[in-house]
Amino acid sequence: MTEQHDVVDVIRAKRDRAELSDAQIDWVVDAYTRGVVADEQMSALAMAILLNGMDRREISRWTGAMIASGERMDFAGLSRPTADKHSTGGVGDKITLPLAPLVAVFGVAVPQLSGRGLGHTGGTLDKLESIPGWRADLTNEAMMRQLEEVGAVICAAGSGLAPADKKLYALRDVTGTVEAIPLIASSIMSKKIAEGTGALVLDVKVGSGAFMKTEGDARELAETMVALGTDAGVRTVALLTDMSTPLGLTAGNALEVRESVEVLAGGGPADVVDLTVALAVEMLAGAGRPQDEAEVRAALCDGRAMDVWRAMISAQGGDPQAELPRARETEQVVADRDGVLESLDALAVGVAAWRLGAGRARKEDPVQAGAGVELHARPGDQVRAGQPLLTLHTDTPERFARAQEALAGAWRVGDTAAASGSVVLDRVDADGVTR
Amino acid sequence: MTEQHDVVDVIRAKRDRAELSDAQIDWVVDAYTRGVVADEQMSALAMAILLNGMDRREISRWTGAMIASGERMDFAGLSRPTADKHSTGGVGDKITLPLAPLVAVFGVAVPQLSGRGLGHTGGTLDKLESIPGWRADLTNEAMMRQLEEVGAVICAAGSGLAPADKKLYALRDVTGTVEAIPLIASSIMSKKIAEGTGALVLDVKVGSGAFMKTEGDARELAETMVALGTDAGVRTVALLTDMSTPLGLTAGNALEVRESVEVLAGGGPADVVDLTVALAVEMLAGAGRPQDEAEVRAALCDGRAMDVWRAMISAQGGDPQAELPRARETEQVVADRDGVLESLDALAVGVAAWRLGAGRARKEDPVQAGAGVELHARPGDQVRAGQPLLTLHTDTPERFARAQEALAGAWRVGDTAAASGSVVLDRVDADGVTR
Repeated sequence: MTEQHDVVDVIRAKRDRAELSDAQIDWVVDAYTRGVVADEQMSALAMAILLNGMDRREISRWTGAMIASGERMDFAGLSRPTADKHSTGGVGDKITLPLAPLVAVFGVAVPQLSGRGLGHTGGTLDKLESIPGWRADLTNEAMMRQLEEVGAVICAAGSGLAPADKKLYALRDVTGTVEAIPLIASSIMSKKIAEGTGALVLDVKVGSGAFMKTEGDARELAETMVALGTDAGVRTVALLTDMSTPLGLTAGNALEVRESVEVLAGGGPADVVDLTVALAVEMLAGAGRPQDEAEVRAALCDGRAMDVWRAMISAQGGDPQAELPRARETEQVVADRDGVLESLDALAVGVAAWRLGAGRARKEDPVQAGAGVELHARPGDQVRAGQPLLTLHTDTPERFARAQEALAGAWRVGDTAAASGSVVLDRVDADGVTR
Repeated sequence: MTEQHDVVDVIRAKRDRAELSDAQIDWVVDAYTRGVVADEQMSALAMAILLNGMDRREISRWTGAMIASGERMDFAGLSRPTADKHSTGGVGDKITLPLAPLVAVFGVAVPQLSGRGLGHTGGTLDKLESIPGWRADLTNEAMMRQLEEVGAVICAAGSGLAPADKKLYALRDVTGTVEAIPLIASSIMSKKIAEGTGALVLDVKVGSGAFMKTEGDARELAETMVALGTDAGVRTVALLTDMSTPLGLTAGNALEVRESVEVLAGGGPADVVDLTVALAVEMLAGAGRPQDEAEVRAALCDGRAMDVWRAMISAQGGDPQAELPRARETEQVVADRDGVLESLDALAVGVAAWRLGAGRARKEDPVQAGAGVELHARPGDQVRAGQPLLTLHTDTPERFARAQEALAGAWRVGDTAAASGSVVLDRVDADGVTR
């Protein structure tokens, strides 16, 4: 932590494909956080990292340096073990909402520190804020009390966790250096490790609606993050899951809350239920409270998960019985012929929901609680000409045209019944990490 | 020249090894000069260029965009053709001083817009400023008049030439992105092309005292620059020249002026004379006034070049007859045994001269006119134990210790007579550029 490392030497080392030393990494992350290393120097280093990579030791040290830039949370005082889930973001991904109460049913505390959405992927807090009265901001004390009493909390992450990551992420966003796996992995894991969970399950999305478009990239990111969690003493597992099609039948804030409540009531679309159960099984195993799948499914059907959901929403000021907002206007997309819905592109649906008002282009933009896209068929379903495939929802009907533009060519009705695969594509655990 | 190109798209394109379009290059260089593209964005792009390269069209367009950021000079009004020389910088490289008047002898105008030194390589203006009364700053009108009447001018480059390069160079210096051949080549050539010369000879140094340490790198830089000059309609040739040993027997401002005057008087070290003549022959051929080598050598011996030198110095307020400054203190480095001086490292001599006060670490530092290193032997010379090899000159004797440190291990007396090669290693012209 001295000023002995000339930043140009650090940049040159990575530029010339050398490994950065522990001392170089500690210094450069700390010096950047303090403003001693300038933005233009860190962006050159980020580009060199993107193009030349970092090995497991370097990424682990980089992550540690970002954690050290801020505070760490500690759940050791709780009577329950903790488990956390992180998704790399997708379209219609409301899984956190039914998952947190479901896991809490089995005596595991679930502290889900979440964010708001940006771009075509929704944000968990935006979704919950469509529930009248619900508040995202909790003090640490309120969060601990809720974890002890209810078992699950979904709230806003404090600004004290990994401030180096916050600064670096904003820089990467404007310098074309977001897509570096070492930097993506350390960004996610620095926050998750700083949150102090004992077990972590990563939902790494693959496909058009995901950040990672190919299974190879997703696997590399998953393996890198599992290695980082393992090196930091967190029991970490990743599932690679399909994001070529939206999850479930809704994309949009209140629309997704409604679907989540259906799942908690024992119904809901099969892919949402399957993924929720698969992630819950992993979280419970990681937290040392293993349950078989049937028992977990039962907790969705018999009302135990719903009870925790209601307590969780009420504890944060929300009214779980309140009517959810609905958009003022709707418009439909209908099938052009009889046949089978062969494909429905996740990215296009995400962009349409965003344009309808469900998402934001800039951090300070508001979102519409009722806006979004509702699906009436999923790939593999038989449809008839003129039958509604999608309903678009918005308070501002002038947005329909640009949403329809996003959806042009995004679905196809044909004659071939697509093989509908499992939503979980693969699993990566600490034993499966060879790099 | 519209704002239609998102800078992140431009960065991503080069990051992903795509070619940048003409429109992208024009826009990004212009937008950076105007401050629309931020430093942290340009440094990420510079790192991507360093690691992924640019092809001949891209480098040529980039150079053109940097030229377009400022003013261009025009020598078409002169009655003589023009020729210019650029050296990539070395130790003891005083060649511009005898070369400009020598070429002017043959009716070619030589406008040498020069800079000051930074680091271990000396600056031409620093050297001439050791002549009492001499001024580096000329108006454009005074420069044109001197070119017409005297035929040679060595003066400070105005700040209006390629301002994009000035801004970009300062950025590269602090972001580890100096060593990118496309950026080095476009930096040098944008200024030289903007200066408006008809013919250009590049002296690309190779060896420890040079920026390019290997002949391969030097050749790539030379080929790139010759291509850029040729594409811009400037008759351009490059010589690759040796910089493993200092040029001549002096490194330091007044010391080098004294040696240059010896060359103009028909004497001086053979390597300085040989390189001056080789470059003059190229410049005269490029300017359409070819002369054979013997005739050029004759102009050094018969006083014609000296006459132009005196006129050139006088025209800028200098007194060519004045006594040159001498440092107040000297110290010697002596041979440790009888034998042959096998090597004398250029970089070490350059650093020693710099530490003695001949150079500067920061732009605003002053230099000592008399400081530097004088050589009493060159590699291949027989020496005797106790015989002086070097004399160190400075006004501030506390500097001797650090200069001696730089020279430790930098020379070797042995039993093997080193083969003394030619200072000119190779020649690259437009026909020799295949990339």
